[in-house]
Amino acid sequence: MALKVIHDPHELQAYTLSLFREGKTVGFVPTMGYLHEGHLSLFRCARRENDVVVASIFVNPTQFGPGEDFERYPRDPQGDKEKAESEGVDVLFMPRAEDLYPLDFQTFVEVERLTRGLCGAFRPGHFRGVTTVVTKLLMLAFPTRAYFGRKDFQQWRVIEQMVRDLHLPVEIVSCPIVREPDGLAMSSRNVYLSPEERQSALSLYRSLRKAEALFREGETRPQVYEQAIRTILESAPHLKKIDYIAIVDGLTLEPVDRVERGTLIALAAHVGPARLIDNWWVGVDSLDLPS
Amino acid sequence: MALKVIHDPHELQAYTLSLFREGKTVGFVPTMGYLHEGHLSLFRCARRENDVVVASIFVNPTQFGPGEDFERYPRDPQGDKEKAESEGVDVLFMPRAEDLYPLDFQTFVEVERLTRGLCGAFRPGHFRGVTTVVTKLLMLAFPTRAYFGRKDFQQWRVIEQMVRDLHLPVEIVSCPIVREPDGLAMSSRNVYLSPEERQSALSLYRSLRKAEALFREGETRPQVYEQAIRTILESAPHLKKIDYIAIVDGLTLEPVDRVERGTLIALAAHVGPARLIDNWWVGVDSLDLPS
Repeated sequence: MALKVIHDPHELQAYTLSLFREGKTVGFVPTMGYLHEGHLSLFRCARRENDVVVASIFVNPTQFGPGEDFERYPRDPQGDKEKAESEGVDVLFMPRAEDLYPLDFQTFVEVERLTRGLCGAFRPGHFRGVTTVVTKLLMLAFPTRAYFGRKDFQQWRVIEQMVRDLHLPVEIVSCPIVREPDGLAMSSRNVYLSPEERQSALSLYRSLRKAEALFREGETRPQVYEQAIRTILESAPHLKKIDYIAIVDGLTLEPVDRVERGTLIALAAHVGPARLIDNWWVGVDSLDLPS
Repeated sequence: MALKVIHDPHELQAYTLSLFREGKTVGFVPTMGYLHEGHLSLFRCARRENDVVVASIFVNPTQFGPGEDFERYPRDPQGDKEKAESEGVDVLFMPRAEDLYPLDFQTFVEVERLTRGLCGAFRPGHFRGVTTVVTKLLMLAFPTRAYFGRKDFQQWRVIEQMVRDLHLPVEIVSCPIVREPDGLAMSSRNVYLSPEERQSALSLYRSLRKAEALFREGETRPQVYEQAIRTILESAPHLKKIDYIAIVDGLTLEPVDRVERGTLIALAAHVGPARLIDNWWVGVDSLDLPS
């Protein structure tokens, strides 16, 4: 069927609840738009596994902190519609901010332990904004399955925990990071990078390749990984600040004593005007990062 | 049909989602048990308006503060089952605490402005516990309508706000306070009162009757109500502490300059070992409180 664009939250919910009643499965992909191949891979996964695919495009103000890039976050609604339609998305939900956050809005969903480290430590309130809007979107899209990319690994784990804790009747599916041919993890924020900065941004990917090489050599000491990664990142000319190099358990996101299958190596760094993240999930992501 | 008791959250959710699919309406009454006529009035209301009635009994630890009465809160599961069955409840959900709050539980739902005043100011964290467990229970019981008594007026308003903010697909219905023949608002906590304390507890009701009399005389000044109520409460021998005498808008719960239709007069006071609350919703509750 042709892509249907819905702006009104009530209209979406009435539609998706009727699909639920009819026994139709719904795959849902929440996004902030400016769609790239990472998003499209989620659409394709949702398309394969469900009767109906719903995607949302909403640059959610509550997950941006003061001084972050809410205003300049890239937007391309027309291009997004075309991409969604060509990937077989059935419904594109594009709510207005005032419909999701009316003046008397005052309810927040918060996940505690899992949001303390990694990005949570550097972006206070970020995950509270994410979990709040995702709860709202899950109630409106009322999907059988919702799809999240593992570039935002912590976000995926936080949402999975929230869904379990609140008994939201949805299955959370995560999909692997999609990379540019040179290895840079796809991100709408890559558009912030000048060609020179983009070269520096590759240092995140290169440091994960180095981690992979260490793992193949049998290295298990987190501090060896951390130092090797830091050396590579710090040699990149436009790399302004490392937020973290985290070597943690992929489920609890707590630091590990030993790198092994299930360990997550996660990075966040500021390159030029962009804050970038990337990660490698040891033994789950392919042992061969694309070369 | 005979009362069915369900302990397992997943079993309840599978059942209620199947009812939803079949187009059956479900009325849900969440309680902490030790059922009294107030609860039973909610069961009857749910029974009249829905195909299936689900009630829950769960003394929710997260809504009690340190030093509050979680441990001694009265419990009577056998009596509750009999009362629920005789009122036509179809399903009684009695979860175990460890099934609602497993060790890795860490997600909370919080309503901001509406929880600042009244009981929220005296019971830090209370409403966070309430909104968290009610979200969980609404997801498990997945009702068409959920019923709340207006003795807990602020709780009802907070839940209504939460449901709207998170787009939970349920209608919140509130029902009037049910009183003992002498006017005392029904509460499971009334069991804490000795006969003498119970006499003192009637001062809450008597002060609301006085407020009603003032309103009939055309009085509009909040401070006149406040003083009249305070005088009556302070004359009661076992009244240990007034938490608040609130004269607020019934929707925003913000203090009003003028008492009129829609104003809420709400009280909280400690009588002997019990913290009691009561209220009168001017022009909505009958202008004749039972004499």
